[in-house]
Amino acid sequence: MSSNRLMYLPLGGAGEVGMNCYVYGYGPEHDERLIVVDLGVTFPDMDSTPGVDLILPDVSWLQERRDRIDGIFITHAHEDHVGAVGHLYDRLKAPIYARAFTANIGRRKLEEHGIDTDVLTTVSPWPETVEAGPFKVGFVPISHSIPESSGLVIDTPAGRIVHTGDFKIDTNPGVGEPFDAELWSSFGAVKALVCDSTNVFSHAEGRSESTLADPIAELIRTQDGMVAATTFASNIARVKTLAEAGVAAGRSVCLLGRSMSRMVQAGTETGVLADFPAVISPEDATQIPRENLMLLVTGSQGERRAASAQLANGKYRGLQMKEGDTFLFSSKTIPGNERGVIKIINQFSEMGVDVVDDHGGLYHVSGHANRPDLEAMHKMVGAQVVIPMHGEHRHLREHAKVSKSAGFDSIIAVNGTIVDLSGNAPKIGGYVETGRTYLDGSVQVGMLDGIVRDRIRMALNGHVIITVIIDENDDPLGEPWCELKGLPEVGASNAPLVDVLEEDLGQFLMRADAKTLRDDDKLEEQMKRIARKTSQAEIGKKVEVTCVISRLS
Amino acid sequence: MSSNRLMYLPLGGAGEVGMNCYVYGYGPEHDERLIVVDLGVTFPDMDSTPGVDLILPDVSWLQERRDRIDGIFITHAHEDHVGAVGHLYDRLKAPIYARAFTANIGRRKLEEHGIDTDVLTTVSPWPETVEAGPFKVGFVPISHSIPESSGLVIDTPAGRIVHTGDFKIDTNPGVGEPFDAELWSSFGAVKALVCDSTNVFSHAEGRSESTLADPIAELIRTQDGMVAATTFASNIARVKTLAEAGVAAGRSVCLLGRSMSRMVQAGTETGVLADFPAVISPEDATQIPRENLMLLVTGSQGERRAASAQLANGKYRGLQMKEGDTFLFSSKTIPGNERGVIKIINQFSEMGVDVVDDHGGLYHVSGHANRPDLEAMHKMVGAQVVIPMHGEHRHLREHAKVSKSAGFDSIIAVNGTIVDLSGNAPKIGGYVETGRTYLDGSVQVGMLDGIVRDRIRMALNGHVIITVIIDENDDPLGEPWCELKGLPEVGASNAPLVDVLEEDLGQFLMRADAKTLRDDDKLEEQMKRIARKTSQAEIGKKVEVTCVISRLS
Repeated sequence: MSSNRLMYLPLGGAGEVGMNCYVYGYGPEHDERLIVVDLGVTFPDMDSTPGVDLILPDVSWLQERRDRIDGIFITHAHEDHVGAVGHLYDRLKAPIYARAFTANIGRRKLEEHGIDTDVLTTVSPWPETVEAGPFKVGFVPISHSIPESSGLVIDTPAGRIVHTGDFKIDTNPGVGEPFDAELWSSFGAVKALVCDSTNVFSHAEGRSESTLADPIAELIRTQDGMVAATTFASNIARVKTLAEAGVAAGRSVCLLGRSMSRMVQAGTETGVLADFPAVISPEDATQIPRENLMLLVTGSQGERRAASAQLANGKYRGLQMKEGDTFLFSSKTIPGNERGVIKIINQFSEMGVDVVDDHGGLYHVSGHANRPDLEAMHKMVGAQVVIPMHGEHRHLREHAKVSKSAGFDSIIAVNGTIVDLSGNAPKIGGYVETGRTYLDGSVQVGMLDGIVRDRIRMALNGHVIITVIIDENDDPLGEPWCELKGLPEVGASNAPLVDVLEEDLGQFLMRADAKTLRDDDKLEEQMKRIARKTSQAEIGKKVEVTCVISRLS
Repeated sequence: MSSNRLMYLPLGGAGEVGMNCYVYGYGPEHDERLIVVDLGVTFPDMDSTPGVDLILPDVSWLQERRDRIDGIFITHAHEDHVGAVGHLYDRLKAPIYARAFTANIGRRKLEEHGIDTDVLTTVSPWPETVEAGPFKVGFVPISHSIPESSGLVIDTPAGRIVHTGDFKIDTNPGVGEPFDAELWSSFGAVKALVCDSTNVFSHAEGRSESTLADPIAELIRTQDGMVAATTFASNIARVKTLAEAGVAAGRSVCLLGRSMSRMVQAGTETGVLADFPAVISPEDATQIPRENLMLLVTGSQGERRAASAQLANGKYRGLQMKEGDTFLFSSKTIPGNERGVIKIINQFSEMGVDVVDDHGGLYHVSGHANRPDLEAMHKMVGAQVVIPMHGEHRHLREHAKVSKSAGFDSIIAVNGTIVDLSGNAPKIGGYVETGRTYLDGSVQVGMLDGIVRDRIRMALNGHVIITVIIDENDDPLGEPWCELKGLPEVGASNAPLVDVLEEDLGQFLMRADAKTLRDDDKLEEQMKRIARKTSQAEIGKKVEVTCVISRLS
């Protein structure tokens, strides 16, 4: 009998911010029983994933072993933790567990995919636990920026693991349970602390959500016009802080943007936002003097279709920003989103709207633990080993350094790395193939399928389509025909590029020998070469080429 | 006789950071004599300008009036001020003026385009001046981050204009003349101060380049491995600060990246960098113990082909970063470049290289004037009106506010706005059509030509090519043929997308009436519609379609 192995395997989130998906296994090596923690998404960008709608972890490895999965545990309701539940459930078909608010959001996602919501079980917090194969899993309340965020205590025959999920140390977080240091110090012997890394480069102690209430209320109170504020809709703590500040400043609050309304609704339904201020509809908002109105809008990252971008473009649901109004970004711009955000700021500037953003740190605090708070967490849990998760490589590496300098063993494990936790020290137990799955329109495609690569090439190089007809005698019928897309009309010869291409290709066809004309592959290869050479000479660019050879035979 | 008009017209740089190009005019309205200040470029990005190599101001308005241009004045040798000189000279054909270092860089650009470098005249600084039509222009030394940066004093029959160019207030700038407050207070009656706006949101007083020397030398001295540092090659002040710090820390300095070597060479040729430390070649660098070596490399913005990206990918010119080495970003990441920079940081992290960036502000200062320095400049020059230039709309608007609150008249003028400075108060004198010209490969194309739009569409939606052959009787010959590029193979029907498309198009062709089959436009329109509808149903995406209809008749 082979001995049992306790393993940790990140499939998403370790080597990036977003797309969290972690696997724990226990049992005979290569036949472990498995649980999954979080099924999150990340977002595409034009640079690397044009046309893609959403990015999911590649769960092929799990899918091939789905009879060994005893449960999927969702720590909280942020998209990068719960967003892939609907998209990936059918490939895993394992029971899902979450606390009530997270479950509410998760069920909406399952419903959108026509999946029976009974596969998701609502769980009470620690000290209650869920038995899942050899695992016993408890949801331990932890402060973050959304209700009922939880870390997990995962008990296994080989010892206890504590998985923080996303967290900050905040004893007055606005929504969700205050951080309970006593609770987080009470787990006894812990084999491994698997810990959020995103803010390891922030050296200052983290600030409480509650510190924002007064500055934001003061800001709103001193404005003469309408005030609009944006944050992540899923940052429910902030949405509440902003709404309460608006009310404190004597304004009626109106939510704009579907995700904003949906999140508040989920919070109200589950009772975790019972004390959320009353809001008015956009229709009613148009009837209120602008100095008595506050809008709470989606689109803090400059997303093109969100409410903030719509307001920056003009009217949205009958409401319009004007000279003398104020727009507050109560958010941090995620790297890569700067251009979109700056565009909105400049559009508002053109309207005469004053934009207030977070340069002073007065109107935004992070939902994640800064370095001193990570160090505090390490000490509270006192695990044998700290495994940094959720972060880019630089975050994981720095977090491992921080842990080691405080005397904790640590190991850097990026997506696809199996960490064997069975012995006294963690060790690499192998690697699995992993990556990303793209949701493209309604289809899931692999990141290595070449689809996105071809799109990027067309975008960078333009696209020439060559059509040639070959008759029954394997002779060209007429001239080759070219269509250009995404290319300049005229190049170095001062003649239309399409003419020069057709001329050069026609010359080639006239001279081509019978063997070449009979061979589609050869013909295509030669014509592509000529088109690239001609375009390079004419416009200084090697174009993408598609050849269509039609044979009448 | 119509009275004369004094006008200011930005064609680039006013409404953006980069691509500076400003026009001043004096003479009968609509027949003014003109001078141009700066001919800069800006850089493309995948989001909005995929495949484009460089972005130039659209100078059509100037080109149409080129017989009225009396001179082009280049304030300094940064790409966003001098970068378009070679690309646009042939369209303007007016004499160019610059100080020696700027002229050296400018002539290299003219040479690259086969233009006689005599069109560029080297000018001595103020109090010398150049007569250009009704204008008398003097180059006034001002501190920035590159040698011989200059503001311009522009005398006209209607009064004096002071154009700052890019600047900071630095009495110890490392390269270039120290800021001379007495000189900048000596211009007497000034009609308009046209003033750099980029740092108006930075509220702290600007810091001198010289404050970096000690912290950087200290950082380098305390590293055990090789040290590499990156900054903009054109930030010659920083290149020098870094090289001197390396030498002070007892290391040999090696420049990597063509633009780095070219800039230092230009500085040495013109004598403005006579005191630049001796450097060694990459070949020699491979022979030196790494703890005695410092690399100075291009690519501070994560540019894919620059030295920093190459080092992050592996070897570059025989040199390789290793565990224990240090990489310093002595630079600020320009919004939009974050992803590229972060990618490099993570690659280095994977190698075990420690990356130091500017979060503390210890290793980088800006080359532009912060708000208090702008206010100081306003006072020193004491112009009737302050016209904010070089900045996005939000910068221009804020700068105008700052000016007004100190009692100076001000006006916001974005690209294409003619400001009439003839009277006692500035007023809008009209608008001209303006925009951007894309250098795409070797061809200049207009931003509204639709080329880039088509590329973006192919990147977002994929591309389907439909080929149909119509015989002599206007009947389809065989089935329609589809080629897919950038699209998933299989959609909702679980059959190849290409088969479903060909099937649907074939059905349509079979049923199409003679009139449709005779009409290319109608046929194309219908087939495009069907392809979009089918793809939407199959893969949830409306594809881009190109139709090639070949008629045998």
